[in-house]
Amino acid sequence: MQPRITCITLGYRDFDRARRFYEALGWSGRSPDDEVVFIQAGPQVLALWDRAKLAADSTVSDAGGWGGVTLAHNVRSPAEVDAVLAEAEAAGGTVGRPGAPTEWGGYSGVFIDPDGHPWEVAHNPGWPLDESGAVTLP
Amino acid sequence: MQPRITCITLGYRDFDRARRFYEALGWSGRSPDDEVVFIQAGPQVLALWDRAKLAADSTVSDAGGWGGVTLAHNVRSPAEVDAVLAEAEAAGGTVGRPGAPTEWGGYSGVFIDPDGHPWEVAHNPGWPLDESGAVTLP
Repeated sequence: MQPRITCITLGYRDFDRARRFYEALGWSGRSPDDEVVFIQAGPQVLALWDRAKLAADSTVSDAGGWGGVTLAHNVRSPAEVDAVLAEAEAAGGTVGRPGAPTEWGGYSGVFIDPDGHPWEVAHNPGWPLDESGAVTLP
Repeated sequence: MQPRITCITLGYRDFDRARRFYEALGWSGRSPDDEVVFIQAGPQVLALWDRAKLAADSTVSDAGGWGGVTLAHNVRSPAEVDAVLAEAEAAGGTVGRPGAPTEWGGYSGVFIDPDGHPWEVAHNPGWPLDESGAVTLP
């Protein structure tokens, strides 16, 4: 099994709200059926799908809240962390913690999307991003 | 906010078990402190971290089970779906559903890692993978 994650699906409870939120961030996708949205996110796909259907398809029970997965969006400067958090808040997200220096020598904050999915927005000087946005571990 | 997910962190309850499971799949990483593991997964990082610390860092309450996020690992053939599911089961995962044709014209199955995180393993003829494993939406 090669180390690759080709698609990440986030379950939503309100299709229009979820789609509008990511569109407002500039994450536009296509929806073949007004139920699922596929967004090209670099070399992978971010999908938005009905949470109950995702649970059934994933053969799991839904605990109803957060379940131990957090996504991160690394950027190139502390100022960009603050800008992305402001953008997410303006789009209808909630800032869980504002941008601040971290104990690991970077700068990060968290926003939470309208369905409760948290995103860490981070600048990590030890994880350089190339032009395409790819991260390579040192 | 550019469409990019640079890191996905999965919360674990047992460090050694989580690390061994992903290592058995060939997903080796480095751990600076025997608490977090960073695995290079294509152009991004898969991190394994203590679930309670991840919840606190993500400013969320932990519902304790699945929380509306499913990862997918797309492969190049139905046979490869079956092979990956067998590999995951041998490593200590649980097959939630075996490989089978899907209504969207592909072939997929699900395994669940030792901490309850589901992975869909899929062959989607409409989502070709390039040599690096990147998916491009049609």
